[in-house]
Amino acid sequence: MTDFVQSKLYEWAGDAMDFESTSTRDGYIEIVNYPNNPDGTIRHAVVNGSSGGLIHDLAYYWPQYTPITSPADHDIMLFSLSKFSGHAGSRAGWAIVKDLKVAQLMSKHIMFNTIGLSRDAQARAAHIMRYVVHQYSQKGSAPYRLKTGPDNTTLLFHHAYDTLEHRWKELRDLVVSGARFTLQDYPLAFCTFFGETTTTHPAFAWLKCEQDRDCEELLNSVNIRSRGAHLFGILDPQYTRISMILSLKEFTVLLSRLALLNNSSQTNCESMELTTKR
Amino acid sequence: MTDFVQSKLYEWAGDAMDFESTSTRDGYIEIVNYPNNPDGTIRHAVVNGSSGGLIHDLAYYWPQYTPITSPADHDIMLFSLSKFSGHAGSRAGWAIVKDLKVAQLMSKHIMFNTIGLSRDAQARAAHIMRYVVHQYSQKGSAPYRLKTGPDNTTLLFHHAYDTLEHRWKELRDLVVSGARFTLQDYPLAFCTFFGETTTTHPAFAWLKCEQDRDCEELLNSVNIRSRGAHLFGILDPQYTRISMILSLKEFTVLLSRLALLNNSSQTNCESMELTTKR
Repeated sequence: MTDFVQSKLYEWAGDAMDFESTSTRDGYIEIVNYPNNPDGTIRHAVVNGSSGGLIHDLAYYWPQYTPITSPADHDIMLFSLSKFSGHAGSRAGWAIVKDLKVAQLMSKHIMFNTIGLSRDAQARAAHIMRYVVHQYSQKGSAPYRLKTGPDNTTLLFHHAYDTLEHRWKELRDLVVSGARFTLQDYPLAFCTFFGETTTTHPAFAWLKCEQDRDCEELLNSVNIRSRGAHLFGILDPQYTRISMILSLKEFTVLLSRLALLNNSSQTNCESMELTTKR
Repeated sequence: MTDFVQSKLYEWAGDAMDFESTSTRDGYIEIVNYPNNPDGTIRHAVVNGSSGGLIHDLAYYWPQYTPITSPADHDIMLFSLSKFSGHAGSRAGWAIVKDLKVAQLMSKHIMFNTIGLSRDAQARAAHIMRYVVHQYSQKGSAPYRLKTGPDNTTLLFHHAYDTLEHRWKELRDLVVSGARFTLQDYPLAFCTFFGETTTTHPAFAWLKCEQDRDCEELLNSVNIRSRGAHLFGILDPQYTRISMILSLKEFTVLLSRLALLNNSSQTNCESMELTTKR
């Protein structure tokens, strides 16, 4: 982004891990994806310096993806409707910011940059959030152990958690049944939102190919579009990212194609004919 | 905008009228508001140079505002739903661009900058445009002399033209009945869309106060919010911009407040009590 806009204000300084805050570069911004994308782990700020600002991106910080272990309490926290309810196309987001001045600057920037989000999208986002908050508020305050809301409706985060848990189980079962792929393990933690011990179910699976040189290429051979490691600044092409929040139909097709690779030791699968109905 | 983003690529070089294209500054962009905002006149590019790019902003280039005298044929033409149908809050716009490479860069910029417009807004915009095009296409090709569409519905541009014509007549009648204000005159021209001679009815009236020093301030004194000349880079505070595309209720209140000023020679109108019902 900084490269693209060619701003006079900031430039891309590379990976935070490698960044040395010296006296000559005494203003930096570190962005913490919290949880991290693509691997879904919780990461913390790493820059060794005190003159910088921190931005925490909490786009995936919802109980269906990661145990909520404590209230989030960072200086600048970004949120989005995208992974909250799946309305990525609304482009609706919000921020919780401690410093009023910073909040005003952010608001001004959005105004100058986009003249504000479409009113249609704002209205829809407000409606969705109001509905979800209303559902849960009928049940008192957290932890929320029941799975149903008023009028026996399904509660959003509970539904999303169950769906992801089921999908991750299916994917793990498939992966352990062969030797071709492995998946990361995630720790258990007590989720204060659900009031029970849960584990991480990222919106993306960070798949490792144990026998093949290039995992994205391998998946491409059976018409699975994934995002290879290189797109996340990672050199090892044995990793690739696949989405877990497809439609159910698409997810079923995804599993069946992965199963074909898992049961085969060929890396060249061009002879397999697979098409998706649209 | 250029000042705000502090881009390395471009900087604000001031009013196009005063700009001298020299060998040391051989890349410039001239933006032509077509028609102009705030005064609604048709303007043409003015920079004396050949190394620059032209962007024509056609946000107000619709037959209800200005006679369409010939097909628009500029290199980069920007359009918006905002003044087309009044859906400014949708933030939906489009461009007609001659150079494919430029179009691709613009598209890429929008993608990086905003990750694209909200899908809700896109769907609504497409629906509105499809409906309007459908209405007119039932009537063959331009000129469109009839005012009704299929099933006796009112055609959008015809309705908007009639509304604006009526409002402008009311405003002009008010202005000529006193000596306090004047309005610009606009030329008649043959509109190829309507197939008749029409005149300009800008979405904004560029009001001049003939007796008072500061027109925006005068209007403020009776609770009319306008945008003073200084906001358009014009030093003379005798001018201010008022909107003609308010709701009918608001427009009626606007006229009644202007009439109070017109019938009074006081500049201090604080004794008048005027409130608007919400």
